[in-house]
Amino acid sequence: MQSMKGAVIAGKNKMEIRDNCPLPEEIAPTGALIRPEIWSPCTSDAHLCATGCESLPYLVGKAVGHEMCGVITKVGSDVHDFQVGDRVIVCSVMPIWRSLEAQDGHAKNRQDNMYSGIDYPDRGGSFVEKYYIRDADMNLAHIPEGVTLEQAVMVPDMMCTAFEGMRQLNPGFGETVAVLGIGPVGLMAVRAAVLHGAGRVFAVGSRQVCFDVAQEYGATDLVDYHNENYIDSIVRANGGPVDGVILCGGGPGELNKGLSMLKNGGTLVNLNVYFGGTAIEIDPAVWGFGYGDKTIKGVGCGGGRLWMSRMAQLIACGRVQPEKLITHRYHGMDKIPEAMQLFLDHDRSLIKPVIYND
Amino acid sequence: MQSMKGAVIAGKNKMEIRDNCPLPEEIAPTGALIRPEIWSPCTSDAHLCATGCESLPYLVGKAVGHEMCGVITKVGSDVHDFQVGDRVIVCSVMPIWRSLEAQDGHAKNRQDNMYSGIDYPDRGGSFVEKYYIRDADMNLAHIPEGVTLEQAVMVPDMMCTAFEGMRQLNPGFGETVAVLGIGPVGLMAVRAAVLHGAGRVFAVGSRQVCFDVAQEYGATDLVDYHNENYIDSIVRANGGPVDGVILCGGGPGELNKGLSMLKNGGTLVNLNVYFGGTAIEIDPAVWGFGYGDKTIKGVGCGGGRLWMSRMAQLIACGRVQPEKLITHRYHGMDKIPEAMQLFLDHDRSLIKPVIYND
Amino acid sequence: MQSMKGAVIAGKNKMEIRDNCPLPEEIAPTGALIRPEIWSPCTSDAHLCATGCESLPYLVGKAVGHEMCGVITKVGSDVHDFQVGDRVIVCSVMPIWRSLEAQDGHAKNRQDNMYSGIDYPDRGGSFVEKYYIRDADMNLAHIPEGVTLEQAVMVPDMMCTAFEGMRQLNPGFGETVAVLGIGPVGLMAVRAAVLHGAGRVFAVGSRQVCFDVAQEYGATDLVDYHNENYIDSIVRANGGPVDGVILCGGGPGELNKGLSMLKNGGTLVNLNVYFGGTAIEIDPAVWGFGYGDKTIKGVGCGGGRLWMSRMAQLIACGRVQPEKLITHRYHGMDKIPEAMQLFLDHDRSLIKPVIYND
Amino acid sequence: MQSMKGAVIAGKNKMEIRDNCPLPEEIAPTGALIRPEIWSPCTSDAHLCATGCESLPYLVGKAVGHEMCGVITKVGSDVHDFQVGDRVIVCSVMPIWRSLEAQDGHAKNRQDNMYSGIDYPDRGGSFVEKYYIRDADMNLAHIPEGVTLEQAVMVPDMMCTAFEGMRQLNPGFGETVAVLGIGPVGLMAVRAAVLHGAGRVFAVGSRQVCFDVAQEYGATDLVDYHNENYIDSIVRANGGPVDGVILCGGGPGELNKGLSMLKNGGTLVNLNVYFGGTAIEIDPAVWGFGYGDKTIKGVGCGGGRLWMSRMAQLIACGRVQPEKLITHRYHGMDKIPEAMQLFLDHDRSLIKPVIYND
Repeated sequence: MQSMKGAVIAGKNKMEIRDNCPLPEEIAPTGALIRPEIWSPCTSDAHLCATGCESLPYLVGKAVGHEMCGVITKVGSDVHDFQVGDRVIVCSVMPIWRSLEAQDGHAKNRQDNMYSGIDYPDRGGSFVEKYYIRDADMNLAHIPEGVTLEQAVMVPDMMCTAFEGMRQLNPGFGETVAVLGIGPVGLMAVRAAVLHGAGRVFAVGSRQVCFDVAQEYGATDLVDYHNENYIDSIVRANGGPVDGVILCGGGPGELNKGLSMLKNGGTLVNLNVYFGGTAIEIDPAVWGFGYGDKTIKGVGCGGGRLWMSRMAQLIACGRVQPEKLITHRYHGMDKIPEAMQLFLDHDRSLIKPVIYND
Repeated sequence: MQSMKGAVIAGKNKMEIRDNCPLPEEIAPTGALIRPEIWSPCTSDAHLCATGCESLPYLVGKAVGHEMCGVITKVGSDVHDFQVGDRVIVCSVMPIWRSLEAQDGHAKNRQDNMYSGIDYPDRGGSFVEKYYIRDADMNLAHIPEGVTLEQAVMVPDMMCTAFEGMRQLNPGFGETVAVLGIGPVGLMAVRAAVLHGAGRVFAVGSRQVCFDVAQEYGATDLVDYHNENYIDSIVRANGGPVDGVILCGGGPGELNKGLSMLKNGGTLVNLNVYFGGTAIEIDPAVWGFGYGDKTIKGVGCGGGRLWMSRMAQLIACGRVQPEKLITHRYHGMDKIPEAMQLFLDHDRSLIKPVIYND
Repeated sequence: MQSMKGAVIAGKNKMEIRDNCPLPEEIAPTGALIRPEIWSPCTSDAHLCATGCESLPYLVGKAVGHEMCGVITKVGSDVHDFQVGDRVIVCSVMPIWRSLEAQDGHAKNRQDNMYSGIDYPDRGGSFVEKYYIRDADMNLAHIPEGVTLEQAVMVPDMMCTAFEGMRQLNPGFGETVAVLGIGPVGLMAVRAAVLHGAGRVFAVGSRQVCFDVAQEYGATDLVDYHNENYIDSIVRANGGPVDGVILCGGGPGELNKGLSMLKNGGTLVNLNVYFGGTAIEIDPAVWGFGYGDKTIKGVGCGGGRLWMSRMAQLIACGRVQPEKLITHRYHGMDKIPEAMQLFLDHDRSLIKPVIYND
Repeated sequence: MQSMKGAVIAGKNKMEIRDNCPLPEEIAPTGALIRPEIWSPCTSDAHLCATGCESLPYLVGKAVGHEMCGVITKVGSDVHDFQVGDRVIVCSVMPIWRSLEAQDGHAKNRQDNMYSGIDYPDRGGSFVEKYYIRDADMNLAHIPEGVTLEQAVMVPDMMCTAFEGMRQLNPGFGETVAVLGIGPVGLMAVRAAVLHGAGRVFAVGSRQVCFDVAQEYGATDLVDYHNENYIDSIVRANGGPVDGVILCGGGPGELNKGLSMLKNGGTLVNLNVYFGGTAIEIDPAVWGFGYGDKTIKGVGCGGGRLWMSRMAQLIACGRVQPEKLITHRYHGMDKIPEAMQLFLDHDRSLIKPVIYND
């Protein structure tokens, strides 16, 4: 193993740039090394930092990060579609495509863990000098011509998660969708709803910076959840319960709120991650007493080259402007802790920060 | 209004045959009157009786019942496909087919309530001398030649519910399905799983009379839920979590059990009804922390003529022998309270009783 | 029967305004009468006119037309959601919602024929003074506030057909769709593809007036089918066969062309109507020799109040500007023949004409 | 390359056992070698033989065959789930799971060609002493305990094709399915229809030996296609057009026959292969003039370990008895030409032959 610089979680609320991150000397025949050009920290990185990796303690002392684009510096002998010098989007999940899960249509449920890969157990995230990926042909995607780095780095998690959620919500033409939580994933979900044919789109949040982007993305109704009775007001404005709900924020109680505005026969997609251990409670009445044909899906980020390529294609064709999410820009790996601090400070002007590796 | 005899809930644990049940003198042009030939009480009837209609207090003093087959004695002028004398299966739910819900594919979510119909607010259930139905062409089905009354009366709720649940569970060929709870609906779900291509079918219950039928219906593994660690033992026997779970019994805690044996990417269908008000709790870990692509569907009984006809067709073609569910047989309306008592006594030899109206 | 004025096909290439169109004195309890405010002739009307109703000879002497919006002048006693004075969109197909086809999810395959309704066998189309509809609650839709007549009259056929086709094509996010034929339905299909998440959209046509609207609707590639090898050039530009194809024009040979640019595993939706009797020929090689998992769907216009309401909702929310299709505007029923002549003359500036009833 | 014995197409109607079939000395790290225990020739093998490989001329002089089970004799270093000595079912198609097609859900549309694999261009089929497979973990399946060789060898093509067709036909509970052509794949389709919940199943064929098995598999109606008007008689017996049709035999004209008995809104699955070059003709009227919502799918054999395992699971659970298809049994590779001759002679007692390698 060689050593390299990386942005490491050193403890609770403590992120440091260290130079002892491990880099393998050899790569798998299907593998590749990528030199990052741009990074974007995510709420989940901040969560790890804030808790000192409470839920994943083996991560302490390792690099974080899973949203990155860069340039290939090395490829294995069995990589066919990528070459040194190619500019690529790197998957934030790492589906293993030679797996029964993949044959079952759920490749993402069997992963080469981002933080401790199969043939690289000590690696951490991608906020490092060189990032190793085990199956380049399957889990990288080219950045199409005309797509900027800032756009591309919104693909691996922001778009891949929100659009996967909307794919599974599957609203019909002209149906109403409520997006509960309009941080960066929620805002992408607003855009995804519009691009899946939704008519009315309720964007439920509280910060003006987010409402502004929601509107640009096509939300028809901006709702502040601090308003008492905002659920009733959504149902009233819509002329009845909504056709679909997508949860992009909030705690275990949010699911019940979502169900309470959802029509019988409708679907709720959850994009939240619940590591806290608190039970999610469903009030039977809002779930149609169990027989109202309300469906609840707990959805994770979609991964793989094809899905990322299709997201990139949406950008290239002008369907999405994901760079609207970016509120803060930095230069140099050393600025990653400063960017991370925005999350820890709950900065109300923040949607997404990016850091250029230059 | 005329008066007629019916089996009425008189109070807590108290069912009486009374002769003051109302019968309308006129029927809608699309309506029909049916003289029952066979009835079958359901757990939900028993639940109403046991609680004295706590959850639906307007039912006290009205007739109960929703599983019935009979002979048409009168049809409205706008009924096209049914005539006086036809032997029919009567829907246990009453979808309104001229509704936006029907256009949305969810007709059953807009009903002409069984117990208090649109143009007949005082009616009760179908354990009466004559039962009125508002839309004969849409909510009755002919009993096909060769299908017996005992088979036919299992259609309206037992089959229509279990097969609707399995339709929405949608297991693939050779997949594993676990049926939690093997009362009559659960047993039908076992058969439905086999007829939807399932390979291994785990039937989870506790009574021998039910295990016997489960095996005849094609269950491959009979599991007693009194065994400690029965969930683990299912997962171990299956070589991993199951592909689909259907809940056909148990309280609010059952859902969590179902999720804990379900694969990521799998579906759980709930056929239970939760009137108690107790919250349903989901432990995030068994739900893949919210992002394991596990889907939860709360499904109600399917209704309408076409669905009932297709159930009847399955019987006529020999795919299902629903009469295997029937453990107790009575004759005469006066015996309905006695049949109901089997439920109230938790008789361990009971699956389903029927009462012939002769 | 009363008499009224209407635009009638008098023979081959001959349309006349006559005053002997029949109007029923009574209407069904669920029925309504509508006074048209705006009409739009369709290619299929023109086809009837050009051929003298060769394929539907009983139409000679009857009014034509199926794209109309107007004001309700009379409602039956059993109409609940519409009143005299309401401004409505009138369905171009007339699904019968109390039917087994509706219960089967295919209501549109059982219709109260537009030209010879169940209780009104002599009626013709809606280019008359008063139009009768048998089931107002199910087959009319309110025009939402802010939606203009010109927008609304594009709903019954142009939007309802194209969006139904795209619903069944069901492209995924970022996939490529080719629209073969960009007359008014094809242009709407371009917009529907964008609103169903398509990335690249190839619009294949020949007239500049259509290419201009295609581009405004979001087509990324404009292809003239007069170019030799335009199929190859689409496949090359796309980097391989396309994910979905929708046919919105051309003769029986078009299907083969569509299949030849479609990927294995892809879907082709046909929106063409083939009355000519000429066989549609499929070259096995372009269909993957029968085993390439290429799906072919022959799709008809979607109908009913909910579908129309959702189309109207898309307009109200700013997702579609269907008025961009309208190239010619007239006033007064007497101008209908002149508008029809545009089709018969193959006027290259025509997309859609409308006639205001004022 | 080493040499080995194999059953080779030597020319038109000429099959020989030769000893110069090539066997690679090395295998890929993910690869395996299998020593056959049982083979089954297929109509398509016979077709190649009868035509002297007209459509695939590079096959002359190579071994044929794609239905085989055997014992693993060698595995590559990167094979995880299989060991030397394991008894396995060998895929008849060879999906490449590290491919964009696999990520798109269509792995089978990108194959390591059975007859000329990626790293083994000279190989032929599996009627040889040792068969090489490139991705053992993904394209082999274990033979479950209790499943016989005769059962297992029906999996790779007979079951994998017929059940894949039925999966895509996707009939609902109680619906009617017509199976046109009841050779071995058609018979499996009959069973698959029953196991997908079909009610009435029409089996259309002409030979008694096939009708007998169709009945044992659950067909309700046996129809001889020599009867004039057999299509009308099916529609009449069913009380209307059928819900689904699956083509398992016949020439390019069969598709039109299938469509003519199919309801509007129904689906036809084609399992035939059309190498002849003759166009498939669709009469617009039987296709609902292009707008009757009739769907046509051209489906190929499903492949991969999971699909085969699920087929094997159906056998192990007693859902299917595929050995009923086997009418002729031989021993020793030298008998393969004799078995093949049954097809060339159109032996009316033949459904499927097997040859044990002993």
